[in-house]
Amino acid sequence: MSKKLLKNAYVLISADDDVEKMNILIDKDEIEDLIPVEITNKREQGIENVEEFDLSGKLIVPGFINAHTHSVMSYFRGLADDVSIDDWLFKYMFPREDLLESEMAYYGAMVSILEMISNGITTFVDMYMFTDSVAKAAYDLGIRAYISRGLSYDTPEGWKKRLNENIGTYEKYNGLDDRIYIGFGPHAPYTVPIDKLKEVAKLAKKYQTHVQIHLLESTNEKQLYNLIDIENTGLFEVPTISAHCVYADEKDIEVLSRSEVNVAYNPTSNMKLGNGIAPIVKMLEKGINVTFGTDGSASNNSLNLFSEMKIGAILQKYKYGPDKFHVEEILRMAWENGGFALEEKLGRLEPGFKADLVVLDINSLEFFPNDLSKLKSHIVYSVNPKNVYASMAAGKWLYFDGKFLTLKEGEEKIYEQFYNYYKTLENKHNSLNFSSNYNTNDNCR
Amino acid sequence: MSKKLLKNAYVLISADDDVEKMNILIDKDEIEDLIPVEITNKREQGIENVEEFDLSGKLIVPGFINAHTHSVMSYFRGLADDVSIDDWLFKYMFPREDLLESEMAYYGAMVSILEMISNGITTFVDMYMFTDSVAKAAYDLGIRAYISRGLSYDTPEGWKKRLNENIGTYEKYNGLDDRIYIGFGPHAPYTVPIDKLKEVAKLAKKYQTHVQIHLLESTNEKQLYNLIDIENTGLFEVPTISAHCVYADEKDIEVLSRSEVNVAYNPTSNMKLGNGIAPIVKMLEKGINVTFGTDGSASNNSLNLFSEMKIGAILQKYKYGPDKFHVEEILRMAWENGGFALEEKLGRLEPGFKADLVVLDINSLEFFPNDLSKLKSHIVYSVNPKNVYASMAAGKWLYFDGKFLTLKEGEEKIYEQFYNYYKTLENKHNSLNFSSNYNTNDNCR
Repeated sequence: MSKKLLKNAYVLISADDDVEKMNILIDKDEIEDLIPVEITNKREQGIENVEEFDLSGKLIVPGFINAHTHSVMSYFRGLADDVSIDDWLFKYMFPREDLLESEMAYYGAMVSILEMISNGITTFVDMYMFTDSVAKAAYDLGIRAYISRGLSYDTPEGWKKRLNENIGTYEKYNGLDDRIYIGFGPHAPYTVPIDKLKEVAKLAKKYQTHVQIHLLESTNEKQLYNLIDIENTGLFEVPTISAHCVYADEKDIEVLSRSEVNVAYNPTSNMKLGNGIAPIVKMLEKGINVTFGTDGSASNNSLNLFSEMKIGAILQKYKYGPDKFHVEEILRMAWENGGFALEEKLGRLEPGFKADLVVLDINSLEFFPNDLSKLKSHIVYSVNPKNVYASMAAGKWLYFDGKFLTLKEGEEKIYEQFYNYYKTLENKHNSLNFSSNYNTNDNCR
Repeated sequence: MSKKLLKNAYVLISADDDVEKMNILIDKDEIEDLIPVEITNKREQGIENVEEFDLSGKLIVPGFINAHTHSVMSYFRGLADDVSIDDWLFKYMFPREDLLESEMAYYGAMVSILEMISNGITTFVDMYMFTDSVAKAAYDLGIRAYISRGLSYDTPEGWKKRLNENIGTYEKYNGLDDRIYIGFGPHAPYTVPIDKLKEVAKLAKKYQTHVQIHLLESTNEKQLYNLIDIENTGLFEVPTISAHCVYADEKDIEVLSRSEVNVAYNPTSNMKLGNGIAPIVKMLEKGINVTFGTDGSASNNSLNLFSEMKIGAILQKYKYGPDKFHVEEILRMAWENGGFALEEKLGRLEPGFKADLVVLDINSLEFFPNDLSKLKSHIVYSVNPKNVYASMAAGKWLYFDGKFLTLKEGEEKIYEQFYNYYKTLENKHNSLNFSSNYNTNDNCR
């Protein structure tokens, strides 16, 4: 049966719609029809071979899009909560990242993807090493993923090696199942020189794919490069998601706006690492397409877009006033703005859009009063992962009533492998006794 | 059987301890003994008539203390997300608060208390009208509660009426079941004149009880009163919890410190209403006893101390640097600092302390890697209400494996009553068509 009918639930088609009761007909990986409940019997007469799901008392909303993360970093959750960004990177992350291996990376990504799925995230955008492992994990678990190799420049050979790895993953996974897409991931303008950014821009055009980059994350970056120079590399002529943009000033916002760069707002990571509050309200005023990202578990420390929306919202209200940054804007950022950035029909539950959706239990305390007019507010400000009943990507249930449906190995097996690899990594690291002036090898950046 | 033995779980005795496997023996409402697992059989031989609970794979931590909330405000969740603090109060809250009634208030408090219990909160501190209703709800559900009547001055008669109500609830409920305590709740220095604050201070001394007050929440309060004048009323000579203190400057911090005033940090509410970030790191440096509060659902919009700890932490890191405000300080604030403020043995799992505790499921994705040394970090930065397995207050299970154990009426019944009252309230409000220059009646403030 390739068709599914989700019956009797309330549906929020998009951030700007009202909640209404209707049935959703899904054909393969797409939404085929939305049928008002009153005329269901009539319209459904012609439908044969359909699997039905009674979702009475539930609310169906678009699947959440996590526009910036590093899924393998689940190993580093809770590793370095109370240190400066430099120590975080050089003393804690880099030395361990150089000990990662391919299968290790696969299980790290698996744990993060399971966390995302159970939190209602149905698409994620990932930049890291071991892109084959991340792509395989995403493919195996059925989530939608946009993955790029983090690229930084050290030596001509190191650069070449990483570029080849990026292209290798592209050739192996791009377009697979119409669900896994591989882009290029120049790490940041301060780790990749201008001529290499030009090279990446050319490659992204040649392969017709997207680019992920970190931009203006910390205050010292302001002195290191000028956004206009990055614009002149041609990098912004392809679909680009730039993470952070905390230190975007008016001129930078002008550049981002005219180049149609997509921004990923990562409020928790930006605050926890002491970077600051991105000027999202200003960006939206200039028509920039802004999305939400969780960043990795090493700096957040969870992959939970409900938390990200709430934190992101109250920060903007603090910065620009409580009457700014309305619920609809926030939900748009978590849904269709992600689809717009990725040039895919995602983030709205309309016919022709991908069948990526989340089912929430509105008979939960967090949803009270569960008056239909209040549900959007509750999604942003009150709901937590406990209220997620099911998640679907590309027309397949990934998570349903507490169970992971696409896991081939048992849940326990995954968790055991993850823990064993975590222990291996920590033991190796401790036995090497790294100095704090650690120089990275060419594994990653 | 008055004794309970919680077996085979990992235990975190306090914020400053390490996680260890041990069994907890509970006698009535207190912790009697902590028994290392290895010698369990020997030590347990003498224990008869004990009910055993196998909590393998779980982590037991102190119950969370919500040091500032308004539980009846569950009716107003999602009502006014995008308005200024003045509009929030005068246009949205006050007109509806004047339509509240006693049984309505009871069901509002019930919904909030159920939400708190399922989120691991085992004690709450509440200031509002209808204190009889709040006290009854807390008594019925088994949670520990410190409740005060919000007092503000309008006319001598209004003041007298509210004071009498406060004293009435005190006489009816104070000390009930060694679990419900009634204090006095002067709303704020800008709504209660100095001589009336003196009167409250005298009453609190006479009744030997605590005081709750809002202090320095918004920037315009700075011009309205001087903290030294409040100190001189004698109000700080009794155990006082002052909520917010966002605008406490160095002098104010000096006053709070020398008077041993307890502060409740409400980061979400402070940001969402556009007030700002309280100088918690500075307060802790001066030895002030700081706790966490969620504030009410109308300004938060959830009663979730996990979220509050994370948001509170990243705000302090943003303000003072990522190396400040460590996990242990944060957990202390959510646990034993609450007990210190309330002058009760709460927030640590030591023999002689109250048996108020929470059981968390550490075989959850949010707890990975679930290395014992990382669990404290995960509680602050990763865990969400989905990971709460059980909550106990005063030696009684309130919540266990998704079920509320102290609910006498069915869950559905409570939810239905709540929704009906919500509808009644909104309909009444809409039919009255309030103007924006609304003047409060004497019901509340």
